[in-house]
Amino acid sequence: MIIAVDAMGGDNAPKEIIEGVYKALSEFSDLEIQLYGHEEKMQPYLRAQDRLSVIHCEEIIGAEDDPVRAVRRKKNASMVQMAQAVKEGRADACVSAGNTGALMAAGLFVVGRIEGVDRPALAPTLPTIDGKGFVMLDMGANAEARPEHLVQYAVMGSIYAEKVRGIENPTVGLLNIGTEEKKGNDLTKAAFPLLKQAPINFIGNVESRDLLNGVADVVVTDGFTGNMVLKTIEGTAMNVFAMIKDVFMASTKTKIAALLVKNDLSGLKGMLDYSEYGGAGLFGLKAPVIKAHGSSNANALFNAIRQTRTMVEYDVTGTIHSTLEKEQQHD
Amino acid sequence: MIIAVDAMGGDNAPKEIIEGVYKALSEFSDLEIQLYGHEEKMQPYLRAQDRLSVIHCEEIIGAEDDPVRAVRRKKNASMVQMAQAVKEGRADACVSAGNTGALMAAGLFVVGRIEGVDRPALAPTLPTIDGKGFVMLDMGANAEARPEHLVQYAVMGSIYAEKVRGIENPTVGLLNIGTEEKKGNDLTKAAFPLLKQAPINFIGNVESRDLLNGVADVVVTDGFTGNMVLKTIEGTAMNVFAMIKDVFMASTKTKIAALLVKNDLSGLKGMLDYSEYGGAGLFGLKAPVIKAHGSSNANALFNAIRQTRTMVEYDVTGTIHSTLEKEQQHD
Repeated sequence: MIIAVDAMGGDNAPKEIIEGVYKALSEFSDLEIQLYGHEEKMQPYLRAQDRLSVIHCEEIIGAEDDPVRAVRRKKNASMVQMAQAVKEGRADACVSAGNTGALMAAGLFVVGRIEGVDRPALAPTLPTIDGKGFVMLDMGANAEARPEHLVQYAVMGSIYAEKVRGIENPTVGLLNIGTEEKKGNDLTKAAFPLLKQAPINFIGNVESRDLLNGVADVVVTDGFTGNMVLKTIEGTAMNVFAMIKDVFMASTKTKIAALLVKNDLSGLKGMLDYSEYGGAGLFGLKAPVIKAHGSSNANALFNAIRQTRTMVEYDVTGTIHSTLEKEQQHD
Repeated sequence: MIIAVDAMGGDNAPKEIIEGVYKALSEFSDLEIQLYGHEEKMQPYLRAQDRLSVIHCEEIIGAEDDPVRAVRRKKNASMVQMAQAVKEGRADACVSAGNTGALMAAGLFVVGRIEGVDRPALAPTLPTIDGKGFVMLDMGANAEARPEHLVQYAVMGSIYAEKVRGIENPTVGLLNIGTEEKKGNDLTKAAFPLLKQAPINFIGNVESRDLLNGVADVVVTDGFTGNMVLKTIEGTAMNVFAMIKDVFMASTKTKIAALLVKNDLSGLKGMLDYSEYGGAGLFGLKAPVIKAHGSSNANALFNAIRQTRTMVEYDVTGTIHSTLEKEQQHD
């Protein structure tokens, strides 16, 4: 199996990316990696490895680049070259910690959609307090969604949860502002009956306040709402932790308390860190395209590669294709 | 000034509601209160007060009642009677801690909309970490919104922030999934240029992760997104606090730490408690209708009455009416 990796994407590129790659190569003996990036910048971190090939790319797509324009113009960027390798069958899947919008554009325009999927969806695995996590999609690949898109998201998320996360008959919830069937906006009201008929284990509406409690294995929503909820969770958790830090710094007494719980509390923060759960899949493309978190260290990138490897191993793409094809013949 | 209060709404009715009423009466000598509720149930908590009148209502609308049906059928319910008093000019405004949906229905069908307002909006004041708070609307009065509704929300929220919260030239942000003008779904993209032209201090798009940092004095969004974000903030904060509690109970060492920071941490939880900021206004009705939090104690209800009193004093309803009228003549 060959996985293409963008060495230049993310806050800690290329050092942590390359270290993550070496870790994956030593962990999985069946794995070959193609590393796309600027040779000079990668040089200090490279060492000889049989199953590693390095491909020099002159250009880099940065966080500030306009996604669609960058992908169209910077043909020699590491991210575009990586996607091109997948498109041409030289690699089975690809991973980048770079510009999310650009990776979505590269996925859509270079790798291409699975027939039967109208819109690819961005699907991270988010943390729950029991450590199990859940898959949520779409987290912002498309700002608008139609009811039938939510059904496709549900099918793709279900297949991923089962094949990659090893959850038998995963539960699927529709994110809504109430649990009753009649609740919601036009989109959720129209999607509800369609989800009931889809080949998934649909458990009805779920509320955002229950997400961290693990209310469903897969949660579907439109990309606008998904992105909004994700950023709200991040912002709230970050603020609460910042406020707690302030409390601990307030006096000698609280500083002593801080010393006593420091290790336990930092473990807590790790529990809410979703880079621990691997990267976000871009579901609905002809091959696995994985977005590792922008702040990925070597370990987060290793997790993303491991996840990508499992997606290839269990043919998630092929299963999505055949399931949606069957589904559409029914209609 | 006469404020009508529903004595039977909320988890702690009628005891805490009545205590909150007495507190308001002793604080504000210009205030008269009409208390609507079941006489027998209120009896144990009532004492003679010149400026308090008690109106017996046989029926109660509960949390489990279907909102619209309850308001239409239970004509003698405390909440409906209270709204009826406002409609007929026997009271200037009303407050309830009961069923939110039913209060919205009573506001819409009994009190009625201000001419020029298409949709009333539910507008709580939410906490920020600096303790200043911000007004957010709509938090779920309407699941769907059109761009021009968001403009009306912005005008109403602005007037409230200025008149009641005393903020000069309050900043107004449009909740979105990115700060750039072109970001978002069809609704936010269409609302952006309209908000730019509205008679408000529009500062552009704001992101949900910055809400608790006080990114704007007024934040507008459709009711589906607003309700979703509110529940996400609640759920995330609640879960983080629960996880911290678990950390503190883990060992003798952490239990000692817990004793040292207990008071400071509970103050923190209070900072994120939005009942401290008064109730949620139902903006766009012919008179102030205020929803106090369902778990309101005497103090929260007192805050809601104080807020209602300020809305009447500074004629928020009249100002909304005249501002929107002027705005519509411009179009």
